[in-house]
Amino acid sequence: MAYTLELDDLEDLARGAALLGTGGGGDPYIGTLLVAEELRRGRTIRLIEPDEVDDEALVIASAFMGAPTVVIEKIPGGDEPVTALRRLERHLGRKADAIIPMECGGLNSMVPLLVAARTGLSIVDGDGMGRAFPELQMETFGVYGVAGSPMAICDERQNVTIIDTGDDNRSMEWFARGVTIRMGGVSYIAEYPMSGTDVKRTAIPGTMTLALRLGRVIREARESQQDPFQALIDYLSGTIYEHARILLEGKVVDIERRSADGFVRGTATIATFDGATKVELTFQNEHLVARSDGKLLAIVPDLISVLDAETATPITTEALRYGQRVRVIAISTPAIMRTPEALDVFGPRAFGLDEDWTPVEKLAPL
Amino acid sequence: MAYTLELDDLEDLARGAALLGTGGGGDPYIGTLLVAEELRRGRTIRLIEPDEVDDEALVIASAFMGAPTVVIEKIPGGDEPVTALRRLERHLGRKADAIIPMECGGLNSMVPLLVAARTGLSIVDGDGMGRAFPELQMETFGVYGVAGSPMAICDERQNVTIIDTGDDNRSMEWFARGVTIRMGGVSYIAEYPMSGTDVKRTAIPGTMTLALRLGRVIREARESQQDPFQALIDYLSGTIYEHARILLEGKVVDIERRSADGFVRGTATIATFDGATKVELTFQNEHLVARSDGKLLAIVPDLISVLDAETATPITTEALRYGQRVRVIAISTPAIMRTPEALDVFGPRAFGLDEDWTPVEKLAPL
Repeated sequence: MAYTLELDDLEDLARGAALLGTGGGGDPYIGTLLVAEELRRGRTIRLIEPDEVDDEALVIASAFMGAPTVVIEKIPGGDEPVTALRRLERHLGRKADAIIPMECGGLNSMVPLLVAARTGLSIVDGDGMGRAFPELQMETFGVYGVAGSPMAICDERQNVTIIDTGDDNRSMEWFARGVTIRMGGVSYIAEYPMSGTDVKRTAIPGTMTLALRLGRVIREARESQQDPFQALIDYLSGTIYEHARILLEGKVVDIERRSADGFVRGTATIATFDGATKVELTFQNEHLVARSDGKLLAIVPDLISVLDAETATPITTEALRYGQRVRVIAISTPAIMRTPEALDVFGPRAFGLDEDWTPVEKLAPL
Repeated sequence: MAYTLELDDLEDLARGAALLGTGGGGDPYIGTLLVAEELRRGRTIRLIEPDEVDDEALVIASAFMGAPTVVIEKIPGGDEPVTALRRLERHLGRKADAIIPMECGGLNSMVPLLVAARTGLSIVDGDGMGRAFPELQMETFGVYGVAGSPMAICDERQNVTIIDTGDDNRSMEWFARGVTIRMGGVSYIAEYPMSGTDVKRTAIPGTMTLALRLGRVIREARESQQDPFQALIDYLSGTIYEHARILLEGKVVDIERRSADGFVRGTATIATFDGATKVELTFQNEHLVARSDGKLLAIVPDLISVLDAETATPITTEALRYGQRVRVIAISTPAIMRTPEALDVFGPRAFGLDEDWTPVEKLAPL
């Protein structure tokens, strides 16, 4: 069922998308302001389900790419992702019929909304990551055979690069990352031009409205003085993100991060208030693995998010600070992201981790 | 007058182009083999003068880019520059009517010949550098207002990138260099799509046949037991490269070179056989400046080339070795390369050198 996004939805959507962003995807705050401005001007954003897309339609994925630490210093004007889309259309010789988020996490939940508002194109309620991932080949579109190429990259000075690596999505990422670094560490992209049939076959469905509902669940629990974490866990149990568990409650006792090669990488340590137990999180834009004293608690592609201990507001990796009181939550990914083909592309080994993937619901709690 | 290139011309052309390459542009040897193979297969290469190009024609510049040190390790298959051209044509939605060399130096005299042979397109007798330069904005096309964008870049795996930075040719170079580095340090490009009118207005005319004749002058002097250096100087005096002088005869006593950031940079020191006088050459792919004991002898954009002391065979910067017996020659550039606009783009300051440009013919000999 098509859904027209309202101004009041934006904060909930941003909150839910920050949760699904697993620490990455960029802080959605700036994006929320840009999208709100569009809605105030009377523009509409229409979310359609994958099943509502014509089989023959051309659908293009929209996003920013780069290190989230850079996005908060190098704020988008708003034209960049629209230019990326238009220039890819011109290169293809065909207009897009709809757009789809690359990832439903963080700022990248807002970038495609901005494009939808400015172009009038519908946006598919779904995405290619089911969370946020740091690299462009890490999309279910590509896992299930869609070529990411040709893709377009645009910066704030309207410099445009089009990359075509055929069906080699890893090489596409390699070149796009190089261009993004030379654009100052952040760029705006249009990629994975695909048919409606491809969307239905490869997208993770419903993730935009899921983000909206997760954000709403958190807010409503707060407003009614209930535990937002329990509300989240209860809500998720009825979705394709079925299993959620709190790994730890405590405070951030150490954070180390470095922006290099177009990513932000680092570790965060969260300790219980008595200091007896610690969880170490390793991230590359997004959290990849949670360990405690050498014991594996959760690992990519399952989701790991850090939330404010009181309000359940998600905290991105670039916003983590010493002393924050937080809870760490782990959430199972949908089945489409757990196949051998999917794990080849975005399982632990794809990030150079030594562990095999184990479903979060099978890992023992602390 | 159109000229059809013959197999016997290739070695002369390569020799002359290596001279005009001022140490850079890549070793033409591999290119000569590839072009010779095309001619042996019966393909023809037709050189036309700029005046023979229709005003409305679409002309595209063809070249390799990257560090010459890498080209000799990563040999082209031959398809790369053709693919770059074809993909740029597809992006433009228009077929090229002719191609033109980006630079008349070194391997880049051969790459466009290969494209001409394989596509049947005529090649304009002229180029945009009048020598070799290390960066893409350093072309008379751009100096006099032609946009280098959109350009296409191709690697040996047929990965293609199209870069469009509007009329900002420096940014084009910046992004193209980043892509080339990620392609392994060398790539093949099609750039500066322009009209026949632009070619007539901005190209340095006749440089391909000049290279051919310079190579022939050297060979014929050798064959008739005459001094090839004097023959060169005599021949150049009747061309737009009017002034030539020998800076030093001696041997290479020091060479330091490093490949980084997509270039090869370094210095070479040549001393007279008695060790009394030394000339130091500084290069970035190409020789930029010759100094002796702090005294300026020649500086970019004037040409500085190192030639074998006996045979006058040009030696590229990546082929310089300790102990080689050489003569260093400096040659004046044509007037179109000495205007204030031209010096802004490829004069000494553009390379971070502290000296102002002084014409080689005004600098005192040693």
